[in-house]
Parts: sequence; C-alpha cells; structure tokens
Amino acid sequence: MATDLEIARSVPMRPIAEIAARAGIPEAALVPYGRYKAKIALDAVRDLAGRPDGAPEGALVLVTGINPTPAGEGKTTTTVGLGDALNALGTRTMICLREPSLGPCFGVKGGAAGGGRSQVVPMEDINLHFTGDFHAITAANNLLAAMVDNHLYWGNEMRLDARRITWRRALDMNDRALRGMTVGMGGVANGFPREDGFDITVASEVMAILCLSRDLADLQSRLGRIVIGQRRDGSSVTAADLKADGAMAALLRDALSPNLVQTLEGSPALVHGGPFANIAHGCNSVVATRLGLKLAEVVVTEAGFGADLGAEKFFDIKCRMAGLRPAVCVVVGTVRALKMHGGVAKADLGREDVAAVRRGVVNLARHVENVGRFGVPAVVALNRFTGDTADEVEAVREAMAALGAEVVLCNHWAEGGAGAAGLARAVLARIAEGRADFRPLYPDGMALADKIRTVAREIYRAADIALPQAVLARLERFEAAGFGDSPVCIAKTQYSFSADPTLLGAPEGHVLPVREVRLSAGAGFVVAVCGDIMTMPGLPRRPAAEQIGLDADGQIHGLF
Amino acid sequence: MATDLEIARSVPMRPIAEIAARAGIPEAALVPYGRYKAKIALDAVRDLAGRPDGAPEGALVLVTGINPTPAGEGKTTTTVGLGDALNALGTRTMICLREPSLGPCFGVKGGAAGGGRSQVVPMEDINLHFTGDFHAITAANNLLAAMVDNHLYWGNEMRLDARRITWRRALDMNDRALRGMTVGMGGVANGFPREDGFDITVASEVMAILCLSRDLADLQSRLGRIVIGQRRDGSSVTAADLKADGAMAALLRDALSPNLVQTLEGSPALVHGGPFANIAHGCNSVVATRLGLKLAEVVVTEAGFGADLGAEKFFDIKCRMAGLRPAVCVVVGTVRALKMHGGVAKADLGREDVAAVRRGVVNLARHVENVGRFGVPAVVALNRFTGDTADEVEAVREAMAALGAEVVLCNHWAEGGAGAAGLARAVLARIAEGRADFRPLYPDGMALADKIRTVAREIYRAADIALPQAVLARLERFEAAGFGDSPVCIAKTQYSFSADPTLLGAPEGHVLPVREVRLSAGAGFVVAVCGDIMTMPGLPRRPAAEQIGLDADGQIHGLF
Repeated sequence: MATDLEIARSVPMRPIAEIAARAGIPEAALVPYGRYKAKIALDAVRDLAGRPDGAPEGALVLVTGINPTPAGEGKTTTTVGLGDALNALGTRTMICLREPSLGPCFGVKGGAAGGGRSQVVPMEDINLHFTGDFHAITAANNLLAAMVDNHLYWGNEMRLDARRITWRRALDMNDRALRGMTVGMGGVANGFPREDGFDITVASEVMAILCLSRDLADLQSRLGRIVIGQRRDGSSVTAADLKADGAMAALLRDALSPNLVQTLEGSPALVHGGPFANIAHGCNSVVATRLGLKLAEVVVTEAGFGADLGAEKFFDIKCRMAGLRPAVCVVVGTVRALKMHGGVAKADLGREDVAAVRRGVVNLARHVENVGRFGVPAVVALNRFTGDTADEVEAVREAMAALGAEVVLCNHWAEGGAGAAGLARAVLARIAEGRADFRPLYPDGMALADKIRTVAREIYRAADIALPQAVLARLERFEAAGFGDSPVCIAKTQYSFSADPTLLGAPEGHVLPVREVRLSAGAGFVVAVCGDIMTMPGLPRRPAAEQIGLDADGQIHGLF
Repeated sequence: MATDLEIARSVPMRPIAEIAARAGIPEAALVPYGRYKAKIALDAVRDLAGRPDGAPEGALVLVTGINPTPAGEGKTTTTVGLGDALNALGTRTMICLREPSLGPCFGVKGGAAGGGRSQVVPMEDINLHFTGDFHAITAANNLLAAMVDNHLYWGNEMRLDARRITWRRALDMNDRALRGMTVGMGGVANGFPREDGFDITVASEVMAILCLSRDLADLQSRLGRIVIGQRRDGSSVTAADLKADGAMAALLRDALSPNLVQTLEGSPALVHGGPFANIAHGCNSVVATRLGLKLAEVVVTEAGFGADLGAEKFFDIKCRMAGLRPAVCVVVGTVRALKMHGGVAKADLGREDVAAVRRGVVNLARHVENVGRFGVPAVVALNRFTGDTADEVEAVREAMAALGAEVVLCNHWAEGGAGAAGLARAVLARIAEGRADFRPLYPDGMALADKIRTVAREIYRAADIALPQAVLARLERFEAAGFGDSPVCIAKTQYSFSADPTLLGAPEGHVLPVREVRLSAGAGFVVAVCGDIMTMPGLPRRPAAEQIGLDADGQIHGLF
C-alpha cells in the first residue's frame, strides 16, 4: 500500500498563486515560501474584508470527534475530505487546520497533514519546518526565559522570587530528559541554580497567544500580560515588567500571518498555529479562521482530541473570544473505535460485534448531545473501514436517529472529496436550515470554580469536581486580580469523559479532581489541571526518526 | 544620525528575481521566501555550472581584519562596500556573508548585516529568522540530543557511558543559565539524571558541518560521523550508530540551499551559514562560495574575528576542504583600532597620536605578513573616521610600504560602493597580476600536535605550545582512530595573537596553552581549546531586546 508521502508526491501541485486566486486572495497579498506555500500578509488580511467585520460571513463548520482510541478516527482527514467535497459541489470553501509539531513527527505518530487521498501538501514541508512559525514561537518563549534568568543575574530589581518562577523553556521536540532540570549550574558566571524544565512548543503559552490574537497589537499586549512568576508577597511579574514583550512580538511578527497551502484536490487550506488541546485550547489561529470566513462561503476547521476537550474549548474559548458563531458541528467516529469504547480489544476489531457497537456508541451519542448544548446542530461522519458490516453501521444509525442526528458514511481517505460528498450535502442542508443558535456553555461573569464545575457536569457528566481548598483560594486570587471573567481551559486525559483514561464509553457520576490551576493571563484563560498532563512527550523505543532520511535525489523518505 | 535600520528602510528593494537574473541565476532555480529573499534550489546549484568543476572560476577575495578592539573595524561593511564597488566598476561580483545569530541581536551587538550605506537587506529579516536555517540547525542538534537520552532511557544497547556524553544541546539565544545543567530530573519517567548544557547554535558542530558540506550526500555522511560520546572502553558512539543522521539530514535539507539577498545598491549577496570562529571555522558555507565562483567574476567573502583566527581557518580548513584557491586578501583596520593596539584607551581615541599608530600598526603588519605565508597577496583597507589625521594615515602607509602592501582609504559606510572604489581597483589590480599561489600552512599528513604548533609559531608567533601529556595522548588517540589527516581548529581569544586577551599589538615569544582537544569528526577538524572559550554567551544588564518592538503599522523598531 502506498504511504501518505507517496500518495502526496504522486499528485502534481499547482502554484500557490493559482490556489490563492481561486480563494479570492490577490497575488499582492501573498508572501511566497517556496512555490507551494505562502503567508498572507497581515495588512492584506485586514484589507481582504470584502465583507467587513459584522457583515454576513461564511458558515463555520467544526469537525470534532469521539474520544480517541488506538483504532484511529480520522478527524484531520475528514476536515480535508469535507472541504474538498464542498468545493467539488461548487461551494467556495476554505479549510482551516492546525500546524503539526516536529515532536510527534520524530516520535510515534508521524505526520499530521491528513492521510490517503485527503491530505494537505506539500506534506513533508508542512510536517517539518513549514514557514517557521513554531520556531518563532520557540524563540519568543526562550527569549523571555533568558530575560527572566538575566534579570535575576543582574540584581533582581523586580524582587522576583526565584522559587516562584513559573515560566518554563520550550523546544519543538519530544525530549523527556528536559522535563525537569536544574539550570544555572557551574558557578557564579552562570547565574543562580534553580529548578526549571522545557515544555514542547505546542504547550507554550506563546502558542496559545498567537492563536488567539486578532492582530499584531493584540499579540503584543497579550505577550506583555504573560505572568512569569511571583514576588515573595504573591504579586505577579509579567513579561512587560521585564520589557520582553516588544522583542517577542518582533520575533512573532511573520508567524502571525496565516499560511496558505492546498489539498491534493487543489482546495485552499490555511494551516496556522497548533496549541495543545489539554493545557491550551487546541485549535488553529483566530486570524486564519476569520480570514477564511471573509473569503469563503464555508470554512471547515477542526479541534484537537475528542469533542469533550476540543469542541468545548473551540466554543467556550475561541468562539467566545473571537466572536465566532459556528453553524454546524461534524462529529467523527469509526465503527472500530466505537467497538473499543464497547470493550473490544484492538486485536479483536476484525470480528463483527454489533453488541459492542451498541455498547460503545454511547460515547458518540454523548458528544452529539453535548454539541447540542452549545446550540450547534451535529452531523455524524462515520469513516469507513473495509471490515465494517452493514449491521454494525445500522447500530450507529439507530442510536443517532434517537438524537435526530444524521449519520453519513465517508470514504474520503481512499477516494478524496468524492468519498465525502454525502457528508458535504448533509452539512449544506444543516447550514441551509439555519437552526444554529450558538451560545457558550457559561457566561463570562460566572465564578471560575463554577465554570469548571459547569463543564464537568454538563460536558463530562461528572457528579461534581474535587477542588482542594488551596486550589479554590488560588482561583479566588485570580478573580481578585481581575481575571475572573476568563474562560477555563481544562487539562485532562483525552481518552475518557472522566479524568481516568481507562473509563471508555460514557461514564457518569465520576468526580473530576482539580489538582492545580494556572493563570495563562496572556492567552486569557485559566487552566485547570485534572490528572497527569504531559507537556513534554518522550520518544518511543524505536523513534520514527530512525526511519527518516534523504534519497540519492535529495527527497525525504520515511516520513509518514 | 539615522540608524542602520532607518537607512536600510529608506532604500527601495528590488524584487529578488531581478537580483537573481542580474547574477545569472535563472528564475526556475529560485525558491522565494517572501519578495526579497530566496533560496537557490540545490539541484539548480548543481546545474548552474556554466563553468563546471575544474574549469576556470571567478577570483576569490577574502576580507579579514586586525585583532578586534572596542573601536570597531567594519569587516562586514567592507565586504559589502567592496562588492558594490566592484559591481559599479562593471565586474560581475557576488558577495558571500555569514548569517547573523539571534543571540547577539538581542544582547549587546545588535544586527550583523553590515552598516550605514553598506548593508544587505531586508535587514530585519536577515537579523531575525531569515529563511530558518539556524532554527533547522537547532532542531537537528536537539533531535540528536533527544535520541541520545532516549537511547539511555530504553536500555542503552550501545553501552554508552553516560558520564562521557559530549554532545550538548543548542539554542540560538544568549542564555547563561543553560551553560551548565542537570537534566533527566524528576523521577524514573524522565530518564537518568546527568550533567549537560546548551551551546548557542552557531557553536554547534551541526553548523560547522552544514557550512563545510559540498552537497546533501556529503551532509548526511558528515552528520553520521558526529561523535556523541564514548563507551567505558573509550570507543566512540556516533550519530549514525543511533540512526539519527537521516532525520537530521531531512531537517537540514532546505537549510543547505544558499540564501540570496541584495545590498542597498542592488548587488547580489549569498548569506549562508554562520559558525563561530573559535570552536569552529568562522566562514560562510562552501555551497554558497562555490556557487558564487561559478556565477561571478569575483566573489568577496569574509571570515570571523581577526586574521589570526578567521583567515587562518578560512585557508587551512575551508579552502583546504573545498579546494578553493583565494586570489587576494583584504585586511581591514582603522586608525582608531590601531591606536588602541598602540596602548590608547577608548576614551582618548579622539586625540591625534601618531606615535600610538606607529606602535599599534605592528598588529596590522603581522596579519599582512601572515596572509603572505599562505601565498595570497594582501591589500589593506583603512576604514575612515572623521577624526583620523593625515599624519596618522601616513604612519600606516609607511609601515605597509615596507611590506609591499597597498593601503586604500575607504568610506563605504557613509558613501556605499563609491566609498570603496579605490579598494576595488586595488583588488582588481592584484587579481590581474596573478601573483597568488595559495598553499595551506601545513600538509594533511603532519601530526596533529605539530599542526597546532605550526599555527602557533607561524601565525601567532608563539615560542611554543604547552601541551599536557593527557592532551597529547588524546591527539594520538584521534590519530589512531583515523583522524590524523584533519586540519586543526584553534579556539582562542580573538583579541590578541596570544591566548591572553590583554596582549595587544604583536606579542612574541608567548606560549600557547592547549587546555583540551575535541574531535569534530563530522565537521572534519580537531578543535584545540586554548584559554576560556565561551560557547553560550549571556545577556548584558540592559539587553538590546528591551528596546525592540513593533510600531503601530507592524514595523519592527529598535533593531540596530
């Protein structure tokens, strides 16, 4: 079977100016990065408002999924396939995706630019350095870190408490050895030894900030609000206090411009930003999404992990902050993954098991129901595998019919846009009905603890949250400091509605333990850490990197 | 007075395709990065051989300098001004420069793309991320580091001695807190605690490798030869042993393509690679220089620090490995800097002091003489400052006349190429005379210790080297392991011919202490560390970063 990279290379790409023209982007707005990638200049983004702010815009379609299992679901693939299908039906559509991180690419996962016939290309560029956005984020993150230690070194005018520095360093790499470290070792000239560590770049608050900023001015002021630590009296020291915000913004200036690429079928795609979906909000940039809405009739975008994390944050953080009003939500699942939610082991997925599908479909059902709580109609996309039986598919249809949600079988992995034509028609039908009435789950003014509780009860169906007194006190300090109106960003496992990754299906009555809360003042949300959250992955025993290399003609091989 | 950035912005740039066309580079070979930067595709580099390997090529002119002082000399500025002047005289000329590092840009020094009317542009792009080469080098360096610790974590099949790991991590940042650290802290899941540290990216062996590689195949095989540490029995473990070389080469594939930009006067410039001139060889990439020689009648390039370090390494490492035969060497000085070599303090440079010039000119004289030992004729470029007096300049001329070296007054900082027209004519005259007969200082087959001694005696004019028995034994182990034919790369202070930075002028009879030797097996040289060498700078009390920011229109300000 051909690899994704082989399939990607087998289709000739069109010059990016041609893709841009089709999307309504004038050539003067393009900043080319090679022949098949371009950034859209920010002043052009501003000027591209053929439909100005407030005027009617394209319809926003979110692609989200069930809780992920080792069986795989295909969210990015569905986003690409749906976009291709809509364009093929004559609906001018823009696809908005996240940029992949280098870490997983060299670790287990391989690339993250779709798969099969539903990919964005040039696949190897997108998966490696692309247009340098993540490197710019890494540099901005680490410039701030260097300025923090430099401030201590030169006398600590701000009276920062070295034990209360919360700003960590970042690298776009899976490197477990950097999770915990002692820096400043080696004597007087190297500063004051202290505990520190690196997060992967996608977990940096700078990434979340880039993705939530509306323009450069917003970016710089958010960067300035980053809290890097506390003084002994508990008061905060910010990036602006250290005069780091301007240089950070300069480093990020080009990174804020959205990146244009194409699908294998020539649909335009904005691939821009990629925050984690646990300690951050897990969706592509506001700048890209808003640009897409100005240019296209439909924008198809995706959110990370399952809908409990990804869609909730897309709605409650991104849409709330950017004033977006989604029209339809596509929830992706597979029969195989639902069987795993129904208790079947991965090795046994080959056998028909309608009962297991019936047990597991509760996971999908709850996500569909949850999406409805935001006032957004759901369509279910069921990605086909050859082993799926008619009875298994029927079991899914039945369960969804009870919720009034249409189920569409998709085969875009193998067929490209043609395999998602039914899904595209279903999405267009929901848009035409105009039943969407988007509302965030909780109002800005609700107490932070109650916001966490609301998400836990309404979305995770927990009985309650466990909130230690010290954590509650910290939330109250955030409120006293003026951050009470922020949305909450819950970091928990993506594998379950609960905080226990082994609880598949649709658990109820569990208690969500809030271990710790952190203020991301620049991003503008409060992170509630529930369970063990990994912000710096490790490499597996046999890293994917071992298989990657260059052919005699300089082509990259081994990238999946 | 206008800043360099203001001057740079005041001159309209031409589209990069126009600059390329003038340089003889077809548009199909260009990979644009925005409108004013482009990479030259590597297959095009190969095909651009209008003059194939071995056939007559352009003349190679090296710009080097006296030992630097706080008074400043202007080596990059002279390289740019000379290139502009040659082009203005109708000689098709390519300028080859190093890429600047982000570290100094946010620290003390500011930008490094020339100055005044002799700059390469777009200045802010070149000084910030440019085309991402340094970020790619950082990523490749750190992927290898992650794979080293990952190898220990998963059972250490190679039996690597964790105490003898020499491969460090890298960031393109001035960050003293990262010089010495303990990584792998925090428990079993984070690996084995061990001492480690970060170097600035320009000090990474990957940087030296990129700059010395002839093509992608050479790059990958050099990466594979990197020694990351030893086993208990003293045998080496390489990047190829860890299967990291292929993925590193994939990360560096685009970075090996040279970058084309323009000067303020529209001359083409290849700005590519930027290794340190102490623990590495301090010049731009072999790929760029060779491309320039195929395209142009004259290539003007520069080497880092003073001629004792920069020119010696350019000749003995880069020219030796790449088979280059330089035609002329320009040695840059200023009256002010020579006065400092003659004992005048910086605060007193405003006063005429002919005697101090006579005392200090010995530094310049020795560099000119040294260049002659490589068989390359020298021209002296004296960068004018308004306070210089006729008698002071005459003192320089007299000293140089004794060596048969022409002195040319230059004013390109203020006037652009017109200010270096005399220098250009002098350089063309030397090329026309054809007296160059380049030879490296020592043959490949000389023992490593004798190579170090030869450079110390012939170039630094040391009485001898001090080589501890343990260091000599290590050199002999390198020889036994097959690395005896490598050139040596001496890491010492750039401020003096000796290892003592306070010994200005032309010290003699000193002893060069060889503290430590390291094998850069991928780069292909043996580093002799003589004195304290900083491979990770720190930020000053008031970092330049504090002044950098974005204007209301998104323009970067505060970058000098």
